[in-house]
Amino acid sequence: MRNEIETWQTGHGDMPPEAFEHWGEDVVRWIAEYLSQPEGFPVLSRARPGALIDTLPGEAPDDPEPMGTILDDFRQSILPGITHWNHPRFFAYFAISGSAPGILGEMLAAALNVNAMLWRTSPAATELETVTLGWLRRLLGLPDEFVGVIYDTASISTLVGVAAARQAALPEVRITGLSGLPPLCLYCSEQAHSSVEKAAITLGIGQTGVRKIPADERYRMDAAALRDAITADNAAGFRPFCVVATVGTTSTTSVDPVAPIADICADHDLWLHVDAAYGGIPAMLPEKRWALAGVERADSLVVNPHKWLFTPIDLSAFYTRRADIVREAFSLVPAYLTSREEDVINYMDYGPQLGRRFRALKLWFILRAYGRTGIERRLREHLRLAHEFASWVEGTDDWELLAPVPFATVCFRYAPRDLDGDALNRLNEEILADVNAAGDVFLSHTVLQGVYTLRLSVGNIRTTEQDVLRAWEGVRRAAERVSQSAPR
Amino acid sequence: MRNEIETWQTGHGDMPPEAFEHWGEDVVRWIAEYLSQPEGFPVLSRARPGALIDTLPGEAPDDPEPMGTILDDFRQSILPGITHWNHPRFFAYFAISGSAPGILGEMLAAALNVNAMLWRTSPAATELETVTLGWLRRLLGLPDEFVGVIYDTASISTLVGVAAARQAALPEVRITGLSGLPPLCLYCSEQAHSSVEKAAITLGIGQTGVRKIPADERYRMDAAALRDAITADNAAGFRPFCVVATVGTTSTTSVDPVAPIADICADHDLWLHVDAAYGGIPAMLPEKRWALAGVERADSLVVNPHKWLFTPIDLSAFYTRRADIVREAFSLVPAYLTSREEDVINYMDYGPQLGRRFRALKLWFILRAYGRTGIERRLREHLRLAHEFASWVEGTDDWELLAPVPFATVCFRYAPRDLDGDALNRLNEEILADVNAAGDVFLSHTVLQGVYTLRLSVGNIRTTEQDVLRAWEGVRRAAERVSQSAPR
Repeated sequence: MRNEIETWQTGHGDMPPEAFEHWGEDVVRWIAEYLSQPEGFPVLSRARPGALIDTLPGEAPDDPEPMGTILDDFRQSILPGITHWNHPRFFAYFAISGSAPGILGEMLAAALNVNAMLWRTSPAATELETVTLGWLRRLLGLPDEFVGVIYDTASISTLVGVAAARQAALPEVRITGLSGLPPLCLYCSEQAHSSVEKAAITLGIGQTGVRKIPADERYRMDAAALRDAITADNAAGFRPFCVVATVGTTSTTSVDPVAPIADICADHDLWLHVDAAYGGIPAMLPEKRWALAGVERADSLVVNPHKWLFTPIDLSAFYTRRADIVREAFSLVPAYLTSREEDVINYMDYGPQLGRRFRALKLWFILRAYGRTGIERRLREHLRLAHEFASWVEGTDDWELLAPVPFATVCFRYAPRDLDGDALNRLNEEILADVNAAGDVFLSHTVLQGVYTLRLSVGNIRTTEQDVLRAWEGVRRAAERVSQSAPR
Repeated sequence: MRNEIETWQTGHGDMPPEAFEHWGEDVVRWIAEYLSQPEGFPVLSRARPGALIDTLPGEAPDDPEPMGTILDDFRQSILPGITHWNHPRFFAYFAISGSAPGILGEMLAAALNVNAMLWRTSPAATELETVTLGWLRRLLGLPDEFVGVIYDTASISTLVGVAAARQAALPEVRITGLSGLPPLCLYCSEQAHSSVEKAAITLGIGQTGVRKIPADERYRMDAAALRDAITADNAAGFRPFCVVATVGTTSTTSVDPVAPIADICADHDLWLHVDAAYGGIPAMLPEKRWALAGVERADSLVVNPHKWLFTPIDLSAFYTRRADIVREAFSLVPAYLTSREEDVINYMDYGPQLGRRFRALKLWFILRAYGRTGIERRLREHLRLAHEFASWVEGTDDWELLAPVPFATVCFRYAPRDLDGDALNRLNEEILADVNAAGDVFLSHTVLQGVYTLRLSVGNIRTTEQDVLRAWEGVRRAAERVSQSAPR
């Protein structure tokens, strides 16, 4: 049956069960083999731009093609263009990894194919969302009054938080829009994620409505500067409405002082949204719980299981103490979506999207298959590995750390003493390009106060000490190569 | 190994390949069995509200649990709470179905777990998105200048279209926000999907900025009324900026007259967004291509493969002739996301979300496994079945069609001659509750000009003539039962 058209393909129905079993087992075996050795591929794809587009036909086939051919093409054409986020030496951005229990959950969710828009359109999908986010809330030590909703991405979770803030500040906004209303101001640190500013653009607040509060020398929001900015904006006729604090910023994973920020929000009646997409997960660990201090006073927050909780993308967990406001900001029930059940949650009422995948299933599998202790053990190992790496940087001449390491992300650079700022920036940019081109490790970068910064993030479930060591050797070799080839 | 903790669960890594193969095959076999007989379950879950929540523990387990136990619990606790969208007699809302090739694609996407935010973070995911949406564009007969982007849902696709319209009308909006700008007006028919109004709310335009243009007796937007409304709004100092036309409205699947609407948009320099989430798919058929007449002049449009193209939720296809405006509306590139490649698409620049699943893979599998002819054959069969049903309604005393049937959705009711409007509404509401409670078929409803309307939508790949017949027998029996039990 490998490369032949099957009978079902020329009929009216779907692939019959025997054929699904055959191809499904084929795919499962391939996945098992792939996951046993993702490091057999270059971590960063070496495909040239357009390579895949050039390979594939310009039109869909008129006639069905054999499933075996399609799967062969997946291996031959698609795989070379994959950047392997599963690779144990993927240290770029935030290193994430799915996990086998999560993949099994996704398989079942794809098969069930329910839309959890209303409770009745799949009660179990709705209720498992309530249950798993309740479990996660307890793991994070958050108060029970936080109500959870699953969205696809932190971008949407933050958009929902800011939209709810807008609704709380200007209850008429849903009806009238922003046109006749006072200009809104949202506050976040200059280190906040771009999704905060993007939410402000999307929601009609605009980039000038985003006040980027300076950070201190450890990249944490300066609470005194926040207070001053709010006071100045109030005096100037603007309408402050929301502060977004970050627990685990993208560049350095710094943690904003949430408790003092919560005080300021209380004084000025501002909505506090906390972006703990990254930092919320390690805060499950008792020794990292400090990172969530003050978060119990937030109006909303986001943590991302698809970031560092072994959950295949996508699954972002949003919590709010003011679910009624979120509902006011988004609920819209046309006649064709009314339902008779009372006392149930229809999650479509709580966000911009009507269609909702059964995302809770994979999270349920993961939380049970690893258990609290298993998750903690893995997170601790990642923290340990990152701190190992940081200690090597610190202990080596001509290399330096550029930020504290509260979690498992290290900001550093090569800094031989005879070079100045611009030259160092160029040098480190070349080091990064060189080490990534080798295909053995993948790191990313950021810019901190004008300084080009190398970034290594540990978060992949397959990463071991050997992998981190290879990253360290890789950047050192790259530094040597680049230094020699580019005469200063 | 069934109900024992495995070694990996107490270590640092993920499930080893052999174990994944074991459990993966277990899950594949279960899926195969399930898909062979989804009609073995009641189509609409009979779970009582709270049943699952009451069953499950209030906290995640401290220690790992055996994978076999988790899968057993899936079958025992989750399944009774599932409403079976795969059931061949799921006729509610828009009947959708995933398909086996789509499930295989989702399995691989979950395993690869790439984030297609930047080209470099997975070139193949980015380029396959370009390729598959190119294929779909050609299947729809759309001009080559339409650029495609995949989003999760039509709600987001429409939000992106309206946001781009806002950006085109008021280029400063991204910077300044809407506060000091003139009040915007968006136009759609009174039959448009709730996602249009929700987009207006989210984007800060507000519900009063949404002008719901009356529909004609066939539920199509009245183009003359649209022109009048725009003229009146211009005179009154409002700022018209966008028209959303619908090809396949949610209640009746009516098709707005897109060509005359495009003329009006051209005259008034308004962005035309077309919501063809439902109607775009059958418009692949030459005999239904009329439904897209005028759409080639749209600025943006949405069609939903996860609705009627056998694609597991979620995958919504957005097209625009003005990708530069969409980019202006959303692009934001922080230092940590800059990349060196030129002449590549970074899809994160085109929408509100940064994280992006590898959704194109399942669509590629589906388009190839069925081929154009295979898709057409299945769509034609669904159209035939719906028209059969409509002919039975039409040919039976005391039953009536309430709208034309351009595609595969039938609006109808039981209307014995001795009852008036309110009594008929109550009667049909009871009929629907009765037939759905039986668990053999699932239909939904809408309200058309105050008339409670039963709705049957054919779109499931497993639905046969027998299934449609059972729906017809089911509603007739329900009508009898309800008529007898409720003395008039």
